[in-house]
Amino acid sequence: MGSQDNYYSEENHGHHEYLDLGDFPLISGEVLLNAKLAYKTLGTLSDKKDNAILFPHMWSGTSASMESFVGSGRPLDPEKYFIIFPGQFANGFSSSPSNTGAPQDAGNFPNIMIGDDVIAQHELVTKVFGISELQLVTGWSMGAEQTYEWAVRYPSMVKRAVPFAGTAKTTPHDHIFVRSHENAIKSDPAWADGFYAQSTDVHVGLRRHAEIWSVMGLCPEFYKQEVWREVGFTSIDEFLVGFWEAYFKPMDPNNLIWMAWKWRHGDVSLNSKNNLDEALGSITAKVTAVAFANDMFFPPSDIVEEVSKIPNAEYRLVESLWAHFTMFCMNEKDKKAIDNIFTEVLSI
Amino acid sequence: MGSQDNYYSEENHGHHEYLDLGDFPLISGEVLLNAKLAYKTLGTLSDKKDNAILFPHMWSGTSASMESFVGSGRPLDPEKYFIIFPGQFANGFSSSPSNTGAPQDAGNFPNIMIGDDVIAQHELVTKVFGISELQLVTGWSMGAEQTYEWAVRYPSMVKRAVPFAGTAKTTPHDHIFVRSHENAIKSDPAWADGFYAQSTDVHVGLRRHAEIWSVMGLCPEFYKQEVWREVGFTSIDEFLVGFWEAYFKPMDPNNLIWMAWKWRHGDVSLNSKNNLDEALGSITAKVTAVAFANDMFFPPSDIVEEVSKIPNAEYRLVESLWAHFTMFCMNEKDKKAIDNIFTEVLSI
Repeated sequence: MGSQDNYYSEENHGHHEYLDLGDFPLISGEVLLNAKLAYKTLGTLSDKKDNAILFPHMWSGTSASMESFVGSGRPLDPEKYFIIFPGQFANGFSSSPSNTGAPQDAGNFPNIMIGDDVIAQHELVTKVFGISELQLVTGWSMGAEQTYEWAVRYPSMVKRAVPFAGTAKTTPHDHIFVRSHENAIKSDPAWADGFYAQSTDVHVGLRRHAEIWSVMGLCPEFYKQEVWREVGFTSIDEFLVGFWEAYFKPMDPNNLIWMAWKWRHGDVSLNSKNNLDEALGSITAKVTAVAFANDMFFPPSDIVEEVSKIPNAEYRLVESLWAHFTMFCMNEKDKKAIDNIFTEVLSI
Repeated sequence: MGSQDNYYSEENHGHHEYLDLGDFPLISGEVLLNAKLAYKTLGTLSDKKDNAILFPHMWSGTSASMESFVGSGRPLDPEKYFIIFPGQFANGFSSSPSNTGAPQDAGNFPNIMIGDDVIAQHELVTKVFGISELQLVTGWSMGAEQTYEWAVRYPSMVKRAVPFAGTAKTTPHDHIFVRSHENAIKSDPAWADGFYAQSTDVHVGLRRHAEIWSVMGLCPEFYKQEVWREVGFTSIDEFLVGFWEAYFKPMDPNNLIWMAWKWRHGDVSLNSKNNLDEALGSITAKVTAVAFANDMFFPPSDIVEEVSKIPNAEYRLVESLWAHFTMFCMNEKDKKAIDNIFTEVLSI
């Protein structure tokens, strides 16, 4: 219901497993009824259960989004590690506006916090797999938010944490920015408070949303140097349609909105009475926080500032004109830079 | 017609003079019928006509917008200089969608180029005042675009040029960014292709537009450091409504859209067969190009790049968390920094 017929399908995103969470109490006090968390795994959990990596995904993604970082001979080698790609609520496979029945269907879906995702993922890691320590928790963007939440909420379980292009607490600018994206979708009368018949009915809202992403998702120099030629486009307008609109158009508008709400409310200090210094100071994982140059969502300066408050943290900057989307590894240089970070981190 | 009753009034913007341009041929080949250019002046033109300064205004502004930079004892002293504040088309006083009758009313108003404004201003400067050399042309943002256009189009008339936070050629990023603002207004069904009964009918579009401006008009650090407290607000939401929405809400939606179209098509290289190096290389004025730190519309790096192509140009950077809006001089430091640049430039 709600989403384009085949987008959230195994055909597009591969096979998922599901953890049944029952009626799942949310941080807000509401209860997510008959909740389920989708996930995927690669590799084999060792007998000692000491080779697990958790790799939550970004906003707009699914458990399949980060699979491309894993491969034989690469730092995240499934022959060595057991890699879990947990879903998050509202991603279209886990409980989401697009797949939940009344009374929590579509526009009635409850708001979710990053902490809710992490609590659900903790159930998965501990109860399904019996893992007591993760060798690495890593993620990009909203995946970084989940990484920080893991490191603060379950410090003894996180040996290493590598958040890419994300913050432990959403900044005010990032907050109003993400809200403007949500509002771009909502501005389409066809959104109808979330109660559209099909996601494609809201295509104008999704296009508006894509337009704003095209401005802030990359950086001025990307467009000036026409870096879109790297990926086969021959004009900027072709890129705007063929990259940005094409990316968002098949997705479910509500799923994007509910994940975005979660994104902008990300804040590990909720675990310590709004004291961010205390929350970050409580992290025991070895943290390597990675910023992407030119990132307009998570400027390097915001990441540097948080790193300074984490006891055992290092900072890395990856230079790329793909800005926030450096993680897409649209060229070999970016892919190598990220792999090198994983190699470095896992060698210690 | 179109605009809120009293916004574009002398009560709000002071007394204007008007130059009647007749049926004015546009660069596009269209003709602006019965065109008029509004303007204001301060000070007295010397007998030798050698004390004139031209100070065109920014997008969304009027001839009154830059008056605050002029004052007795300040570098732009009306006791010494004759200062002309020329209007631009679509500003609500000069010929605009909001004040033009059929067949060029409202949504039928023709698109205008920066060059059209500058040609009209040239008529004013030469035919009305008989001035053959301007001591200084200066402007902010779209005013900077006009400044560059003057320096390229009429090099022998411009002795000094001080463009603040603007470029001679709109970058691709700035282009898609400004277009997203136009589209935010147009997304309101009440805009009705420009044929609304009253500007206030489009208040939802103007609010959407204000929201996007709130994200890109300032900078992340502005919000993090809560610089809005400097101007009396006590919460970010109060600032978003009391500053951004309040600024745009009384304006005419079409006027903003038509000025924005002009902004994003700004390009001095149209004067030299799209050869930007040649256009910038032809400037003979002593140019002092000023960038504002953290400016998300006109990043300092874009300004530096253009400066390198102008024969007799210097670059200045003003550090302020007000980013593009440093020119609003919301604090004494910013005001002083800008005055100091005028003092320096006019002393040579």
